[in-house]
Amino acid sequence: MSEKVTVLVAGSWGTALASVLADNGLQVTIWARSEEQVAEINQQHTNTKYLPDAVLSTQITATSDLAAAMDGTKAVVIVAPSKAMRQVCSDLKPYYHPDMLCIHATKGFETKTLKRMSTVISEELDCLESDVVVLSGPSHAEEVVKRLPTTVVVASHNAKAAAAAQSLFMNEEYFRVYTNLDLVGVELAGALKNIIALGAGMVDGLGFGDNAKAALLTRGLAEMVRVGSEMGANPLTFSGLAGIGDLMVTASSQHSRNWRAGYMLGQGKSLDEVMASMNMVVEGVRTTEAARDISLKYNVQMPIAEQLYHVLFEQSDPRTAVETLMGRNPKNEMEVMKLETWQQWHS
Amino acid sequence: MSEKVTVLVAGSWGTALASVLADNGLQVTIWARSEEQVAEINQQHTNTKYLPDAVLSTQITATSDLAAAMDGTKAVVIVAPSKAMRQVCSDLKPYYHPDMLCIHATKGFETKTLKRMSTVISEELDCLESDVVVLSGPSHAEEVVKRLPTTVVVASHNAKAAAAAQSLFMNEEYFRVYTNLDLVGVELAGALKNIIALGAGMVDGLGFGDNAKAALLTRGLAEMVRVGSEMGANPLTFSGLAGIGDLMVTASSQHSRNWRAGYMLGQGKSLDEVMASMNMVVEGVRTTEAARDISLKYNVQMPIAEQLYHVLFEQSDPRTAVETLMGRNPKNEMEVMKLETWQQWHS
Repeated sequence: MSEKVTVLVAGSWGTALASVLADNGLQVTIWARSEEQVAEINQQHTNTKYLPDAVLSTQITATSDLAAAMDGTKAVVIVAPSKAMRQVCSDLKPYYHPDMLCIHATKGFETKTLKRMSTVISEELDCLESDVVVLSGPSHAEEVVKRLPTTVVVASHNAKAAAAAQSLFMNEEYFRVYTNLDLVGVELAGALKNIIALGAGMVDGLGFGDNAKAALLTRGLAEMVRVGSEMGANPLTFSGLAGIGDLMVTASSQHSRNWRAGYMLGQGKSLDEVMASMNMVVEGVRTTEAARDISLKYNVQMPIAEQLYHVLFEQSDPRTAVETLMGRNPKNEMEVMKLETWQQWHS
Repeated sequence: MSEKVTVLVAGSWGTALASVLADNGLQVTIWARSEEQVAEINQQHTNTKYLPDAVLSTQITATSDLAAAMDGTKAVVIVAPSKAMRQVCSDLKPYYHPDMLCIHATKGFETKTLKRMSTVISEELDCLESDVVVLSGPSHAEEVVKRLPTTVVVASHNAKAAAAAQSLFMNEEYFRVYTNLDLVGVELAGALKNIIALGAGMVDGLGFGDNAKAALLTRGLAEMVRVGSEMGANPLTFSGLAGIGDLMVTASSQHSRNWRAGYMLGQGKSLDEVMASMNMVVEGVRTTEAARDISLKYNVQMPIAEQLYHVLFEQSDPRTAVETLMGRNPKNEMEVMKLETWQQWHS
């Protein structure tokens, strides 16, 4: 009998990752709170609320019983929303054993504490943060369930754990997985990119063109590198799949809530109007607020996040914000990589 | 009276850069071989062949007399096609003085020799390569003449020359200019990105989706870093405006000949059919051929360029090429930055 893997919870990305695992011959159990969703997955093999057009493998079963979901499992894949992460892990604790591989695929910080997801997980599961694996990269769930070619990265301080996650998910047909030892960089990239995607939407909403958008994304990458390396990441991680790769899909897709919120702001809507029309959380808005604290705490310049903050929370005009970015003093392009950083990652 | 700057020649990018200089209050002379084009610029203030919708400043004059064009000029901006660069510089030699600032904005290698443009320029003008400045970055000429916000980089081994070029071009309204000391990296990025843009077009032509395209661009960036740092560039330059910035505009624009050629290949057209329908040079095709020599000479893996070579010159099936890229052995994501490289750029 094939090995068992458990996925928490049944959102679009969790369901898409469950599909990959089922295609790879694993027996997949999804845990969801909603009995209705559990019944739909088990009986119709669909999850229409999150992935309307997908038909799921019969290798995938669902349950609302967390003990049953975790019984005999080899690996747990946690894809909870960032604000639900602590509660989900607290619920998971009684059924988790340190010999299970622990992978998460959630982007964002815990609000207020500014903690990364792997920190929250390790605190709640009482495991080593270095044994947690994060999976990230440019990946619309809708394309993954259609088996369109997709490439992601799995990162962990523990090279064996990263390699184990790689071999669980990778297949030759459509899902390619790279490893990386920079857990911190991959997690920061996934959270910080939402700020830049919001800015890219704003530039598009203002009708500023391809040149301006490419500049915003490139200077946004520089900003991610600057703050990320202060927070302990390898600067080169941001040029990888979880950084610029994910930024490219997020910042050019109508499917991205962050891009769409920025677009509406660029067209002159207020934050309240944007929020009312979206009717769900826009991660980049909360991250822009967090970035202000981070910028002060680590004493790094984040001009793009700062201008976005003025637009979001102080009613600044988006056009003025972009003009302010254009009119800053002449600068050198390069971010400096400190010797200690080089030594940490490359020696 | 304002200072004089000379631009060679009157293509779309040369004309757009002349417009920026004129907006900055400089007296701009464009040198062009075609009397017809010279008359049109002087009398109608248009250059309809290259920029159909633009009206040029009356501060811009044109001449076919190179001696007159160069007389009393402070700086020369060379924007010749890469294959014409050596001849243009040879013509320029008698009128060039080492106290003139020399800037070029041409992307590509010299065919066969694989020399960068600044090498060709310094050989022909008999000046130091370290005094040449390259201007590059994400910049559709059509958007620049509309004064839409645009951000570029000027690079030179000579920091004073780079700063002088920055102050010529930069304005607070729409044209932001960063400096960089990595001339080699900026030139290599501009040439190598055309290979990846071709590949991105192919992925789009195959209908593979956003995930696949973002992966191609990100792994393409890694490939540029790998070969570029062997050739003496700073790896971080490729994450800047001339690298990922320019790649993003080139790889997502119907205006890009490289993207369009790749798209047609992805749809099943042969290279001969693509070339016949384009009726002009596709820089990325020549660069892919050059990349094969570079890959052998410097002993670096260039899997994307290699697969494109098979499609372009050995009638491989594009779908098989992408599947081969997906099916390679499991890899670590990170490119290693050598200590010598770090020391060269950051100590």
